[in-house]
Amino acid sequence: MRKLHVTSKDFAYDVVIGAGVWRELRRLRRYSSVFVLTERRLWKRWGKRFGWESGLADFAPLFVPTGERSKSLRMVEQVARQLGEGGADRRSLLVALGGGVVGDLGGFVASGYMRGIDYVQVPTTVVAQVDSAIGGKTGVNVGAVKNLVGAFYPPRLVLADPNVLRSLDSRTFRSGLYEVVKHAILDGPDFFGQLQRYLPGLHCGQTRVLGQIIERAARVKVDVVSRDEREAGLRRVLNLGHTFGHALEEATRYRRFLHGEAVAWGLLAATRLAELLGVLAPEEGSRIARLARSVGPLPPVYGVSAQRILPLLPRDKKAVAGQIHWILPERIGKVRITKDVPLGAAAAAWRDIQKGGWHA
Amino acid sequence: MRKLHVTSKDFAYDVVIGAGVWRELRRLRRYSSVFVLTERRLWKRWGKRFGWESGLADFAPLFVPTGERSKSLRMVEQVARQLGEGGADRRSLLVALGGGVVGDLGGFVASGYMRGIDYVQVPTTVVAQVDSAIGGKTGVNVGAVKNLVGAFYPPRLVLADPNVLRSLDSRTFRSGLYEVVKHAILDGPDFFGQLQRYLPGLHCGQTRVLGQIIERAARVKVDVVSRDEREAGLRRVLNLGHTFGHALEEATRYRRFLHGEAVAWGLLAATRLAELLGVLAPEEGSRIARLARSVGPLPPVYGVSAQRILPLLPRDKKAVAGQIHWILPERIGKVRITKDVPLGAAAAAWRDIQKGGWHA
Repeated sequence: MRKLHVTSKDFAYDVVIGAGVWRELRRLRRYSSVFVLTERRLWKRWGKRFGWESGLADFAPLFVPTGERSKSLRMVEQVARQLGEGGADRRSLLVALGGGVVGDLGGFVASGYMRGIDYVQVPTTVVAQVDSAIGGKTGVNVGAVKNLVGAFYPPRLVLADPNVLRSLDSRTFRSGLYEVVKHAILDGPDFFGQLQRYLPGLHCGQTRVLGQIIERAARVKVDVVSRDEREAGLRRVLNLGHTFGHALEEATRYRRFLHGEAVAWGLLAATRLAELLGVLAPEEGSRIARLARSVGPLPPVYGVSAQRILPLLPRDKKAVAGQIHWILPERIGKVRITKDVPLGAAAAAWRDIQKGGWHA
Repeated sequence: MRKLHVTSKDFAYDVVIGAGVWRELRRLRRYSSVFVLTERRLWKRWGKRFGWESGLADFAPLFVPTGERSKSLRMVEQVARQLGEGGADRRSLLVALGGGVVGDLGGFVASGYMRGIDYVQVPTTVVAQVDSAIGGKTGVNVGAVKNLVGAFYPPRLVLADPNVLRSLDSRTFRSGLYEVVKHAILDGPDFFGQLQRYLPGLHCGQTRVLGQIIERAARVKVDVVSRDEREAGLRRVLNLGHTFGHALEEATRYRRFLHGEAVAWGLLAATRLAELLGVLAPEEGSRIARLARSVGPLPPVYGVSAQRILPLLPRDKKAVAGQIHWILPERIGKVRITKDVPLGAAAAAWRDIQKGGWHA
């Protein structure tokens, strides 16, 4: 069991990783009542264990349907209503037990219910354990716009048990590993080398190895958000792979790719782009491409042309002109943030990864 | 024009009161775009003036229907969607031009849109100018529960122009004056005496006198919230009159009384209760009752028995046992917060004000 500490000027909390960490809930102060936001299927598989590990005698599970559509203001209303009917007050605790959807929704409900109650993140997917449950970003979608309404609201605690990953289907499991690869590129050769050894053929039941990998990947996120709670700049590096990735998700209406799979394609495209611009040596590009591909096969990107992708590249909402901030790998362990990328080069990078052959 | 300063450990902003204060918007930094949340009727009456006083060349009004029902998560979704479609980004400004509903809704939308954009409160009712627009409490209702979901989110600026009050209907105008009376009881004999002189017969077109009264009443709120941003205790004094008031509103399903009218009945009941408990001298009680009644006639409370009211008295959501915190006047300028009130005395106080005759 390892404890990482998120600290910023406004608050501090622990991210605890390892087998059996749900027991840490026993160490929290007494709450007037406890509510667990989760999905029915997850609860069926893990609810009993959550009960005895957490030591919580009396709590009510609140279920949300599986899937991104649950990240809505309608669902916020429904959960708030259920909390109210269940007698939740300002001293109640909300536990978000699930993946990114449950975590983002639960955190936002906690931020708003009676203007803020405590909550704990209990992430149950790889991507939630290493990324989305850490950092206090919460929110819901409005129409087609992701996370349009939300809050910065830190959890009391994040408890990531790798055991729970064994109930993931293999595609969801692998999808999260692409985010792990992203974190290793940000981190450096040591973690990257560890992944080169362990990722090929890794499956979701290898709890011990997974625990080590997740701890290391989570640490990358913890370090970044501890230094930059409000995304003033540093936090942007976490968007590596997300520029092309978001555009690809949107071009395919969030249907063809899981988030991590789109990020994987985005990573490949950013890597190729960095090569084309002379920012990244081809040997390093090759190592990155091979590691990403070692996770397993990706759904192909046929039919999504450069002309389709380019207009969908996310523009910086903070900049008046709406520029694109590119995050480009310079080498394993270092990225560059730049606005200075010709769109022609971006198009060429996309075409190169799309037609295959590049570092294949 | 007078500037009051709200300061707390986390932030600071000005509350500017006086004729023509909308001009203060000219002094804000440049925003990428400006959106004005308001009601259609208000905009028809004041929109043009807002345009030339604020100096904002280009802004879009977003309309919400008049009434408490607009304080909903559905409306949050609708406004966020309109902001998104209008191209609002993180550097956009939202102006909430209206009464308490527009202010509470607008502030909450601003707190959540892209996880927080700047907003300015431009209150257009007495109660909003002296109370609800100040202090950073925002929120919406869920079902029948008021403000169940919300945020503490301070505005950039609060601009209260008493000129705008001239378009209020007289009942809404007077309803706000009861909150002013409440603030004077908290403040002391000097402000209280000023109201004794000016309240009888005051109408909404007396801009100069109104400006003075509003400044003074707003200062009471500013002082309290500056010392206690998060309602740790001191802020509770602002609930004077609201214990019975809320119960009365709920008993009559928010239909028979405007909020300020219910607060006026609540003030009278709290005053009578303080007398019965020997906390307040009858001469002081009489002065309070006469000042409240000098505002004008209140809708009668027939049919709302003590048995009906008592179970609806709001219990403290922060306390596990759900005790009632009573705010009782000790004298003009001083209140006492106590949990130690026999329900029999509360029932007797209610019956006394209900049957009339007391200090009439």
